[in-house]
Amino acid sequence: MPLTPEQQAEIDSQRTTPRQTLRAVSEGMENHLYVAHQVLDHGLVRVIDYMGDDAAICQAARVSYGKGTKSVQNDEGLIRYLMRHWHSTPFEMCEVKFHVKLPVFVARQWIRHRTANVNEYSGRYSILDREFYIPAPEHLAAQSSQNHQGRGEVLQGAEAQRVLDLLREDAMRSYDSYEAMLNQEGQQGLARELARMNLPANIYTQWYWKVDLHNLLHFLRLRADSHAQYEIRAYADIMCDITRDWVPAAFGAFQDYRMNAVNLSAQAADALRRRLAGEVVTQENAGMGAREWREFQAVWG
Amino acid sequence: MPLTPEQQAEIDSQRTTPRQTLRAVSEGMENHLYVAHQVLDHGLVRVIDYMGDDAAICQAARVSYGKGTKSVQNDEGLIRYLMRHWHSTPFEMCEVKFHVKLPVFVARQWIRHRTANVNEYSGRYSILDREFYIPAPEHLAAQSSQNHQGRGEVLQGAEAQRVLDLLREDAMRSYDSYEAMLNQEGQQGLARELARMNLPANIYTQWYWKVDLHNLLHFLRLRADSHAQYEIRAYADIMCDITRDWVPAAFGAFQDYRMNAVNLSAQAADALRRRLAGEVVTQENAGMGAREWREFQAVWG
Amino acid sequence: MPLTPEQQAEIDSQRTTPRQTLRAVSEGMENHLYVAHQVLDHGLVRVIDYMGDDAAICQAARVSYGKGTKSVQNDEGLIRYLMRHWHSTPFEMCEVKFHVKLPVFVARQWIRHRTANVNEYSGRYSILDREFYIPAPEHLAAQSSQNHQGRGEVLQGAEAQRVLDLLREDAMRSYDSYEAMLNQEGQQGLARELARMNLPANIYTQWYWKVDLHNLLHFLRLRADSHAQYEIRAYADIMCDITRDWVPAAFGAFQDYRMNAVNLSAQAADALRRRLAGEVVTQENAGMGAREWREFQAVWG
Amino acid sequence: MPLTPEQQAEIDSQRTTPRQTLRAVSEGMENHLYVAHQVLDHGLVRVIDYMGDDAAICQAARVSYGKGTKSVQNDEGLIRYLMRHWHSTPFEMCEVKFHVKLPVFVARQWIRHRTANVNEYSGRYSILDREFYIPAPEHLAAQSSQNHQGRGEVLQGAEAQRVLDLLREDAMRSYDSYEAMLNQEGQQGLARELARMNLPANIYTQWYWKVDLHNLLHFLRLRADSHAQYEIRAYADIMCDITRDWVPAAFGAFQDYRMNAVNLSAQAADALRRRLAGEVVTQENAGMGAREWREFQAVWG
Repeated sequence: MPLTPEQQAEIDSQRTTPRQTLRAVSEGMENHLYVAHQVLDHGLVRVIDYMGDDAAICQAARVSYGKGTKSVQNDEGLIRYLMRHWHSTPFEMCEVKFHVKLPVFVARQWIRHRTANVNEYSGRYSILDREFYIPAPEHLAAQSSQNHQGRGEVLQGAEAQRVLDLLREDAMRSYDSYEAMLNQEGQQGLARELARMNLPANIYTQWYWKVDLHNLLHFLRLRADSHAQYEIRAYADIMCDITRDWVPAAFGAFQDYRMNAVNLSAQAADALRRRLAGEVVTQENAGMGAREWREFQAVWG
Repeated sequence: MPLTPEQQAEIDSQRTTPRQTLRAVSEGMENHLYVAHQVLDHGLVRVIDYMGDDAAICQAARVSYGKGTKSVQNDEGLIRYLMRHWHSTPFEMCEVKFHVKLPVFVARQWIRHRTANVNEYSGRYSILDREFYIPAPEHLAAQSSQNHQGRGEVLQGAEAQRVLDLLREDAMRSYDSYEAMLNQEGQQGLARELARMNLPANIYTQWYWKVDLHNLLHFLRLRADSHAQYEIRAYADIMCDITRDWVPAAFGAFQDYRMNAVNLSAQAADALRRRLAGEVVTQENAGMGAREWREFQAVWG
Repeated sequence: MPLTPEQQAEIDSQRTTPRQTLRAVSEGMENHLYVAHQVLDHGLVRVIDYMGDDAAICQAARVSYGKGTKSVQNDEGLIRYLMRHWHSTPFEMCEVKFHVKLPVFVARQWIRHRTANVNEYSGRYSILDREFYIPAPEHLAAQSSQNHQGRGEVLQGAEAQRVLDLLREDAMRSYDSYEAMLNQEGQQGLARELARMNLPANIYTQWYWKVDLHNLLHFLRLRADSHAQYEIRAYADIMCDITRDWVPAAFGAFQDYRMNAVNLSAQAADALRRRLAGEVVTQENAGMGAREWREFQAVWG
Repeated sequence: MPLTPEQQAEIDSQRTTPRQTLRAVSEGMENHLYVAHQVLDHGLVRVIDYMGDDAAICQAARVSYGKGTKSVQNDEGLIRYLMRHWHSTPFEMCEVKFHVKLPVFVARQWIRHRTANVNEYSGRYSILDREFYIPAPEHLAAQSSQNHQGRGEVLQGAEAQRVLDLLREDAMRSYDSYEAMLNQEGQQGLARELARMNLPANIYTQWYWKVDLHNLLHFLRLRADSHAQYEIRAYADIMCDITRDWVPAAFGAFQDYRMNAVNLSAQAADALRRRLAGEVVTQENAGMGAREWREFQAVWG
């Protein structure tokens, strides 16, 4: 587990002191507050704060004076309508703040989502811990032969062992050098902002990441997807669970209209219409490229 | 007061049902929740929700496992340091959601601040109310003769009366026409999305507006400023009071380092240095344009 | 036509002085530069500047040292792949700047797209012209009886005439009052920033609007759509033509994968799969709500 | 120099084929187009494209039909006024696209500026080159003893040599392992997206980075500052030179009102006023904290 006893005590202390508020409260989310969900070998995700719930989406869509909800069923219908018709602004009215501990190469993908607020632990200011991501054997995948940015089979036997040994040894050696360069006993000690350049991309960093629900769902659509790199998907999967507990109606609509939805190109829609009419459709008469046709067949047979 | 009894009842009902939460709570802000602060003749500002407090700024700056605060005094020092050195990201970790009722011409200025989330009452979907901003006599200002976008003296006597009469009569007549065009008795009735084009810019609209603390402070710096148009400043002034109650340390730092701070150009800083050394500085030897020199003298004599 | 002879002369002058550049040039876009395309009765759209072309999208996607293009065919395949798989950042590498003259109620919809740069003509600083949008008879639509924010039949006969009369008369009277309030002969004259509040939402304003290609396409998807209000769609339609001439491959991919694409919910995709397998699908066994089922049938029969 | 002959040939080829355009042209910027400016040991910055010039800022501020410029002197006055009074939107009307090659730890600081468009070379898709940043001896600084995130003296003698040896050896060993893990001869070969996690933060990456002038100047204010880490400042300094050649009036205003300006807190402004009046001001009677007082004295004596 990636927490020290001191850190666990800090978390426990925050969970023992409920206070009164007049704000909207999501019971499902209160259960998650501060709790560290483990991800990968040393990573974590936990909720630090949140604003709003399913009802808050409807309240904003209706620009209400009061709660703005009519009934749970009525609200769910409105939420599904908003999601289906790409009305994104009411979903921006909920906000969540996470504390995430993650390898640097995952952080580099994650930060490409610009519509969020971030405070990262600073390697200029502080000394990083000796914690590195080493993949579990079942995630040690070969390069895909079809897909330039994909994974193939899981590595086996001696090759798998060699990779794990190299990753571990290089991480340890790089960290030893980092410490040796920083060391101020008998020498000046290199500046932290320089020494950190020796650390590999599987070292763990951490940040506070705050985002509205609309942009969170966009992040989850891309990163909880089967084409996303496994290591970031591991975070996105847990954040999906958290979001479902926070705003169940919005998450349900997201699953139906985004995550498990199918986007048909003009050509693909036409091909389906013709198939439904009994026509035999081929790549040629569908007007698709070879790659697109393969993707179409993978979904529709 | 701009509320109907039904609206006031909805607000009262929300204020009578406190719930338990594990989140950070700002007592100063709980007192504001849902309460409608009147602005102008029919406008209002009220807080619908908020996330975080002064301690949350420090917690994010330190990427903490627990509350992240050391002592109130220590936290205030950190907040002032962050503000002084333009570290904006920790201030983005607090968020607030307002319900605002405001004239359309104010809304048009306001919306230029893009880093916020907005849901506005829709004149395509709903019928707008017959409520118009008519300036109080003391805000009925003449065009400034010096400043193309400024105000001069307050209008007096017959001229003031004529202006008020024109504003009131045109508003009423425009709204009468709006109703007549919408009317479906004995005729089809014009589409709402078309009829609204007849309404003048002093009609009231309303929206939910959600923003992080950093961007809120930027908004307040520009809109609670003496160069801002009075009507938007009236909103900004009340939002300053609310923000002070929400995050007193951050607001204090904002006042000292932004709102009441003075930005000296390279030339102005040099001029002050020379004055401190006893030199007589003129527009010519300071290297400033005429307008800039007037602005400099207005501050420094 | 919405241009004065002086304005037309300024445009002509800009089109007569080509200069040399080493930048990427889109011949299709050079033909549009500065030319005013009329929209509605007094509105216009014209291109002031642009950056990049189809090849620039590929160059960025490949992070190239040179032009980064391989062949036109190869580039088009890459562009279609990027669009199909939601790789948005290469499309952000093209930029365009428009000058738009438009009614205020259209501007209020338009400005909700926040990821753009805007400079609007200022009614605080300058006096607005006496130009109002009055719908052509064929666009004078009744309120839809099904859709709260939609249009029904076109108004006919006396009702149509009454609406046009009211719109024209109220616009003229409001503008007369605006001028009377501003007038400085024999009186002080009301401040411009106040007088403008009397002007209705069909008065024309104008702005410079700059946006990257990705966000422009998002705007066009929502605003050139059949559910968009006619008056903003009139602008979007012309901007579609301009964009097609500027980046033909990107626009073609946009049409196939966005504009003319169909988004199937999880339930709808399942219903289609079952139909293809010969099953009879009903609203009940498809698990859709009544409204969603109607939308599904409208597309798929 | 960080270019291969093939890359240099691609650049030369782009510079030999001028074309005609009707767009605004900045001669100072045409000279920079495509040319690679070396930064650090293997890095570079070069301009790929740009939109607008000084006149375009004025044209947008005036929402002009034609060029919108009156005279060069008049335009410069307007630009200085806009900068002095924080009118940022006209500066957003210019845009620039850079190709940058930079160490990963610099890229991680740089990407925190969110209002920009980025396409980075992908280590998921491609194999990174064996190029690492190794500081020149004069930039091998010790940790500052006063400032947690600052540098002290330059390391000397044996310590400097040890640091350079460690950085070089660890980089080479990490890259050797990277190649060994990727190798597909006699083994499957690890997926690229996994192998890259072994590479240290001083490896070079590259990206296309596109930004508007307002946000570029904000970036330069923070990153060409003496408190910025030397390695990112090296990039910012060259980008300052480029920007000066592109928009000389805007850059001049930026230097006077931002870069070389002094922001006085309310307390500091008051202290200066009292000093000018002949009073002796101390930390106590100025109401400043110890650290703030030191900062004040550093500037004003």
